[in-house]
Amino acid sequence: MLHTSTLRESAALAREASADLAILSSELKNAILLDLASLLERDCAAILEANSADMADAENSDMESAMLDRLLLTAERIKGMADDVRHIASLPDPIGEDFDARLLPNGLDIRRRRVPLGVIGVIYESRPNVTIDVSALCLKSGNAVVLRGGKEAIRSNEALAERVSQALEANGGPSDAVQFVRDPDRALIGEMIRARGEIDLVVPRGGSKLIEYVRENAQVPVVAGGVGVCHTYVHSDADLEKALDIVNNAKTRRPSVCNALDTVLIHEEIAARFLPALASRWAQIPVEMRCEQRALSILHEAESSGFIVPAEPDDFGTEFLSMRAAVKVVDDLDGAIDHIKEFGSGHSEAIVTEGYSVARDFLARIDAAAVFVNASTGFTDGAQFGLGAELGISTQKFHARGPLGLRELTSYKWVVLGDGQIRD
Amino acid sequence: MLHTSTLRESAALAREASADLAILSSELKNAILLDLASLLERDCAAILEANSADMADAENSDMESAMLDRLLLTAERIKGMADDVRHIASLPDPIGEDFDARLLPNGLDIRRRRVPLGVIGVIYESRPNVTIDVSALCLKSGNAVVLRGGKEAIRSNEALAERVSQALEANGGPSDAVQFVRDPDRALIGEMIRARGEIDLVVPRGGSKLIEYVRENAQVPVVAGGVGVCHTYVHSDADLEKALDIVNNAKTRRPSVCNALDTVLIHEEIAARFLPALASRWAQIPVEMRCEQRALSILHEAESSGFIVPAEPDDFGTEFLSMRAAVKVVDDLDGAIDHIKEFGSGHSEAIVTEGYSVARDFLARIDAAAVFVNASTGFTDGAQFGLGAELGISTQKFHARGPLGLRELTSYKWVVLGDGQIRD
Repeated sequence: MLHTSTLRESAALAREASADLAILSSELKNAILLDLASLLERDCAAILEANSADMADAENSDMESAMLDRLLLTAERIKGMADDVRHIASLPDPIGEDFDARLLPNGLDIRRRRVPLGVIGVIYESRPNVTIDVSALCLKSGNAVVLRGGKEAIRSNEALAERVSQALEANGGPSDAVQFVRDPDRALIGEMIRARGEIDLVVPRGGSKLIEYVRENAQVPVVAGGVGVCHTYVHSDADLEKALDIVNNAKTRRPSVCNALDTVLIHEEIAARFLPALASRWAQIPVEMRCEQRALSILHEAESSGFIVPAEPDDFGTEFLSMRAAVKVVDDLDGAIDHIKEFGSGHSEAIVTEGYSVARDFLARIDAAAVFVNASTGFTDGAQFGLGAELGISTQKFHARGPLGLRELTSYKWVVLGDGQIRD
Repeated sequence: MLHTSTLRESAALAREASADLAILSSELKNAILLDLASLLERDCAAILEANSADMADAENSDMESAMLDRLLLTAERIKGMADDVRHIASLPDPIGEDFDARLLPNGLDIRRRRVPLGVIGVIYESRPNVTIDVSALCLKSGNAVVLRGGKEAIRSNEALAERVSQALEANGGPSDAVQFVRDPDRALIGEMIRARGEIDLVVPRGGSKLIEYVRENAQVPVVAGGVGVCHTYVHSDADLEKALDIVNNAKTRRPSVCNALDTVLIHEEIAARFLPALASRWAQIPVEMRCEQRALSILHEAESSGFIVPAEPDDFGTEFLSMRAAVKVVDDLDGAIDHIKEFGSGHSEAIVTEGYSVARDFLARIDAAAVFVNASTGFTDGAQFGLGAELGISTQKFHARGPLGLRELTSYKWVVLGDGQIRD
């Protein structure tokens, strides 16, 4: 059953359901997920109809075309969601994993046992597939979830959430475990992030304004990604072919995602060889290169393309999310590290080098969710890192850092088995 | 050097020092800790003098004797602190531990590497030994720390913090890594818990009012223990001797600590045998038994002592921190679990049973930091659990649950080593 009550009521229902969900067998959770995948495919027409109504409103409201595309569902996209759910069903269940097990000298048998966090609140924007992704990840990890999607996608999201509840019900699972908040009042976001004791974790997925608001006002724990200002530093001893491929891939593979390159740093000894080669590759795409003075003077000598412009003061530290990169020549490794410390956002940072000690130094001194040697920052992703799937990427250090896979949606409890032990 | 500047300045100094501290070798960190232990012993007289001044003020201010005792330092207590520091030096270094290492199909060599959180803010009350405990745990785990102790212990704390800075300096370590906030203005607590970007974690150690204030107003992550309302449930098939020892130990070993028993729950089938035996043992101590109706009627028949009184409505769910326990007869395991779900605070919960399935059921369904079968809840403690030492006990699920040892004061970063990999 789908609840459209107030946020506190939804959270309370989710909390009650979470106790049952926490001890559901992997078998049953997987059966629910596989049923969900089938329901999405079976009810494709009904879901598309709901989406058409959202799309009609959106088109009448002057929404820009990139947003419209995010909102749009197609039969193919629904099939993709179903496949993602089947993939999540196929992943190992994180719940019940025991770790740090040992027998203490006094005979106590002790271990940490992985348990769900409880109730996760997710605030998201236009993409309706988030409704299914998030529900599937939360169910698999034994967490109940309160979903608060964007107003523009409300009919699509509701149609999708309805199928989750149906799959739960059909398998005798706790159907209240997925709560969809239908009320579009933005005040509910404030309620969600202050619902201590009812919501165990809030994950805001959206623009930096939403994330900032949540961070400032939340009284429950938050995991948020936020901005990814990613650097790739090309050291003097880099293999230039590798460096070109890595820098180009990090920037151009998918410039709109948070792991995309924003700034290239180049050691001064190699700049005169590397920068013209990069510029000629990027002229073909094109990628705008916003160059600091030293880089600019090298490139102007080479005179490569109209896409080479002087950097503005704010370009360093900016997440471009587009075919644009800031470019800077640095004196040495220290210069690169200092720059990253000042402007990086703790997401993904890379070095290209053939030097063993240089690589070690960079790895030790750069403090970010993911640090790469000779690879593209584009790999920062739950599936790429072997976590199977992800709810998002955390740039904070607390609880979980980097991709949030199933295990990152859990806590643990200490289980202690004795035969009468008492403490002195 | 010891800084007595504003909180933001202290935090900024700590943050700068934290980058150096994060990559200090275990060898150097241990040398600093061993020097600190020696300095405490060498400068014992000076530390005691500072403490005498605090004690004199405290005595003039009508402080109650339990508080005075907490504030008091003696040569023996200082020796105890030094020994604790040496013990922390002897523990394995959590930093640099690699885990989840694997070679991905594309040849990327990936792992999580344990790193410090960064800067930890600790707010604490009268016990001066916390200054040393916390400093040693933070240094060992590579974290800088901002210490905000109680006004009443300010000279003692400053004398102790001074020795930490000296030990850092003597070894060429980052002496700003331990910041002691001398200004007693309570507004600084508000500043600390909102210092996003400068403080990575706040640990409030104190009464429930402090913890509640911090939880409600913090904009940085918080780990707090807070209240421990701990239950021990004696099932119908319990070994009565074990049950008596376990219940008695959990209550009387140290009633003032958070893992002490607050409520005994007894299966109705065994209550008429267990309760009189418990009452006669507790009459000798004495422990006041605040009994719900069914328990009261059994005990009044046995007529054991004047320490058996009817329970007040608030007794269930109260952390007594004294020689007092709430007592209730329940119908069965479900009744016990329901009671714990309603009144427990998620700290430590125990069952006494000889039944295999009963034990399994209790372990699965009770959601607390530590769940025990046939052992005293008094074991919930970092040293007892094999963590070596602890900064406190967390009753939250996020980041760390139960005792906060060295590892719980860390985060991780993903380290990815490639040889030119780019993503499709």
